Amino acid sequence: MTEDFKTLEFKNGKLVLIDQRKLPSSLEYAEASSVEDVYFAIKDMIVRGAPLIGAVAAYGAYFAAVEAKGDKNVFNKKLSYLLSSRPTAVNLSWALERQKRIAENTGLDPSALLKEALAIEDEDRKVNRKLSRYGSEVIKENANVLTHCNAGALATCGWGTALGVIKEAYCQGKNIHVYADETRPRLQGARLTSWELVRAGIPATLIPDSAAATLIREGKIDVIVLGADRITLNGDVANKLGTFPLSIIAKEYNIPFYSAAPISTIDFSLEEGKDIPIEERSKDEVIKIEDYYVAPKEIIVFNPSFDVTPHENITGIITEQGIIYPPFKENILKLKKELC
Amino acid sequence: MTEDFKTLEFKNGKLVLIDQRKLPSSLEYAEASSVEDVYFAIKDMIVRGAPLIGAVAAYGAYFAAVEAKGDKNVFNKKLSYLLSSRPTAVNLSWALERQKRIAENTGLDPSALLKEALAIEDEDRKVNRKLSRYGSEVIKENANVLTHCNAGALATCGWGTALGVIKEAYCQGKNIHVYADETRPRLQGARLTSWELVRAGIPATLIPDSAAATLIREGKIDVIVLGADRITLNGDVANKLGTFPLSIIAKEYNIPFYSAAPISTIDFSLEEGKDIPIEERSKDEVIKIEDYYVAPKEIIVFNPSFDVTPHENITGIITEQGIIYPPFKENILKLKKELC
Repeated sequence: MTEDFKTLEFKNGKLVLIDQRKLPSSLEYAEASSVEDVYFAIKDMIVRGAPLIGAVAAYGAYFAAVEAKGDKNVFNKKLSYLLSSRPTAVNLSWALERQKRIAENTGLDPSALLKEALAIEDEDRKVNRKLSRYGSEVIKENANVLTHCNAGALATCGWGTALGVIKEAYCQGKNIHVYADETRPRLQGARLTSWELVRAGIPATLIPDSAAATLIREGKIDVIVLGADRITLNGDVANKLGTFPLSIIAKEYNIPFYSAAPISTIDFSLEEGKDIPIEERSKDEVIKIEDYYVAPKEIIVFNPSFDVTPHENITGIITEQGIIYPPFKENILKLKKELC
Repeated sequence: MTEDFKTLEFKNGKLVLIDQRKLPSSLEYAEASSVEDVYFAIKDMIVRGAPLIGAVAAYGAYFAAVEAKGDKNVFNKKLSYLLSSRPTAVNLSWALERQKRIAENTGLDPSALLKEALAIEDEDRKVNRKLSRYGSEVIKENANVLTHCNAGALATCGWGTALGVIKEAYCQGKNIHVYADETRPRLQGARLTSWELVRAGIPATLIPDSAAATLIREGKIDVIVLGADRITLNGDVANKLGTFPLSIIAKEYNIPFYSAAPISTIDFSLEEGKDIPIEERSKDEVIKIEDYYVAPKEIIVFNPSFDVTPHENITGIITEQGIIYPPFKENILKLKKELC
């Protein structure tokens, strides 16, 4: 089983992206062929999902090398510009750092940066497959699995992380049922995860975010698996708004709670979750749906795009190197050492 | 301070209702002058909110008496029909029971039922003012108050319950700030509570439901006050979906959590919350916003309209007889005795 769509594809000198703002109503593509295009694609959420943001930014770095024509200052400015597109997902800076090193080692050779972007894209797909195999053990036969937001093929270069774990369990022949939180305000669960699940033919039910607690109390959820936008040394996880309250409810009712993410999502430079910058987005995401206002225009809105789940609420972190369990700090530092 | 709109008004033989489906975009009125009209107004949520449903149903009973022309069987059938419009709010059966007694005592005299409906409406406004004065003591100077759904003038015959408590505290000159959960899926917090707060000039911020947990952890919420659709003998509270998860988070972070409701919301015949029938509504409430689909049409949806908060998570129940504190069962039974 592979998905029948390509979240991103570099062809004819251009990056072709599914325009995720248009799903599920229509499957449309957007093209990016400049730093400005890539900045806009990330900022306006044509693409979203931490691993995908990283890969798209890597192509942005290639366009930056083309546009900089060998001028290192210009190149660095363009990279800073790309870095400023969204603050929370660490994969963005991770990918740009990789490209920076390539630029330094090759004297800003665009073809080297393109090669690296293609490698990052390719690695991401492989990493997702690998972490999905590790993660599938947490989804037992006949499990009801809850997920939040979208950590599927649409959040990555393909296959997905949390949804990859779920798909892997399904492909292994396990009889499972997925509950997808709709994920206000941008409704990635309704728009994207439901779309992926319907397309893949996996039995699934969409719920308002607030309905998860009732299902959990009634014993209808066996395990929760969702993604991550940044993980700190102590195992705290920044992820889509709604992850943190869900973790409290899961803990109260002893439901295993897993975050699935590639190691590139771990920020080895940050001690704990409170240090993660949390993006606040436009009030229009809350008060408008398409062109329709669902609240008075005058109302003040607080719209944080992410929240931070403390490591005490997390059962395990599923990565391509296996599942990290508590004590998180000790085990993440061990992993860091191994990677050096 | 009174609101500058009338949620319901009986005039010229008709019940004039704010069509709450149209807010906040436009303030439109719907008329009801038959049992069928009243059934539709409740079922399709032209009106909603437990106390308002009760009052509107009381007028429905008056129309039933007119239509029955003295035939008791016809009258009873029409009352059963009205009762079937929505299952969770107990105020509906409470109001219909009151009207049934009037019908029995007066030989189905429509004018007596109209008088009773007007009395129920009038009482509701007075009860709300009274419980608001009792409740206002839980909102301290400089408090940040979180509310969920709409328990304002629009949920009642005027003034409101939970939002009435908040307005009373504001009218007393307390410097307060209100956070309003948007309340998916029907967005009563965005559409109705925000509209009331903006109109009343009370400082307020609208948030996605999932953002409440972050505010609570950061110490930005001092007290939570929300309504109720049915309260059982042991103090369990059925209220709008999202109340239960919020109660778990409040408990985890020691934030006082109050339900404000008239005594007509207490179902003295039910022992505990698990006995309350929970309405499930159409999947369209989740996958469609106006005419726009936010999820694939094929997806299965679980859309319970309410959830049940266990009494252990509730600090107090604010009523027109004062605030009921634990032990709830003992104190609710005592209240029942006093009322007999």
